[in-house]
Amino acid sequence: MSPLKIYLALVHFPVVNREGETIASAVTNLDIHDLARIGCTYGAHRCYIVTPLADQQNLVGQIVDHWTRGFGAARNPDRRQAMETLRIVADLDEAIAAVTAREGRRPLRIATSARQDDRRLTMVELREAVAGGRPCLLVFGTASGLADALLDDVDAVLEPIRGAGDYNHLPVRAAAAIILDRLAGTRAG
Amino acid sequence: MSPLKIYLALVHFPVVNREGETIASAVTNLDIHDLARIGCTYGAHRCYIVTPLADQQNLVGQIVDHWTRGFGAARNPDRRQAMETLRIVADLDEAIAAVTAREGRRPLRIATSARQDDRRLTMVELREAVAGGRPCLLVFGTASGLADALLDDVDAVLEPIRGAGDYNHLPVRAAAAIILDRLAGTRAG
Repeated sequence: MSPLKIYLALVHFPVVNREGETIASAVTNLDIHDLARIGCTYGAHRCYIVTPLADQQNLVGQIVDHWTRGFGAARNPDRRQAMETLRIVADLDEAIAAVTAREGRRPLRIATSARQDDRRLTMVELREAVAGGRPCLLVFGTASGLADALLDDVDAVLEPIRGAGDYNHLPVRAAAAIILDRLAGTRAG
Repeated sequence: MSPLKIYLALVHFPVVNREGETIASAVTNLDIHDLARIGCTYGAHRCYIVTPLADQQNLVGQIVDHWTRGFGAARNPDRRQAMETLRIVADLDEAIAAVTAREGRRPLRIATSARQDDRRLTMVELREAVAGGRPCLLVFGTASGLADALLDDVDAVLEPIRGAGDYNHLPVRAAAAIILDRLAGTRAG
């Protein structure tokens, strides 16, 4: 099997809060680390941290520098390897342009959401699409999830993760891990 | 399919640091939240936070109280539902005793580790064991993983999660999510 061309984006705007209002969420140090480590485990080429806020971009830049060039890089080479996949962008279009430049082809833009809907891409369909070599940008929302404006502007929205019951409040970090693991499909049994 | 009898334990002692020394790690607020939410998604009945340190036990107790009885409980009922599965114990034996009392039967003690080894339980074997109704306590280590003393004192160690390459530095939060998702086996395709 040829390596999948997977890219991740963690979006801080436009997302919704618990009341459904569109907001720009604050960057969380741990989200950045986790997404980089999870992406690195499953061979994602880049993890784009999406925020239009200059101070938040600076914050992410400092974190990435610490772990890729600063004290953290020398102390923890494993973390460095993961953190080197991180890129800071102002919006999703900038991430798409970067993937397109790298792959010579526009990626499929696949958003994720915990909400069920009539038309969702199944994991089987997504796996078939990427198995054919198509680059894919998996888009994750922070706070209470991606805003409709963004969900309406992607190629498809992936079916939500269902667990054992009705509870569907997974951390975005966990959702990313599960989706990449399902997509890789290396599981036994 | 009958509901699985899954229990989780997040161990802060005995675990190892990056140098392989046995330590007691500090409790992380986000680990507690994530493990509770992930467990709740996959129907885990209890999440045991394992630490022998009294101040750390108090800290976890305050966090749990905030989200199950305090301001957080009223503000965020979804989080409350997850946090109500949390229990604080001093060691793994206390968690095992609690599961045994609840189920009327000793649970299988299944440790997790990122290290490969000759004898590891496969996910297929674990799924068969719990599908038969056997209670199971899945044991996760913080820091750089569970110490050998604990790994030698469980019924089995689960095979490590393999991603797309050699990188095997998943956050414990992500590992727990992936293992529960694989165990539930509700995935499409």
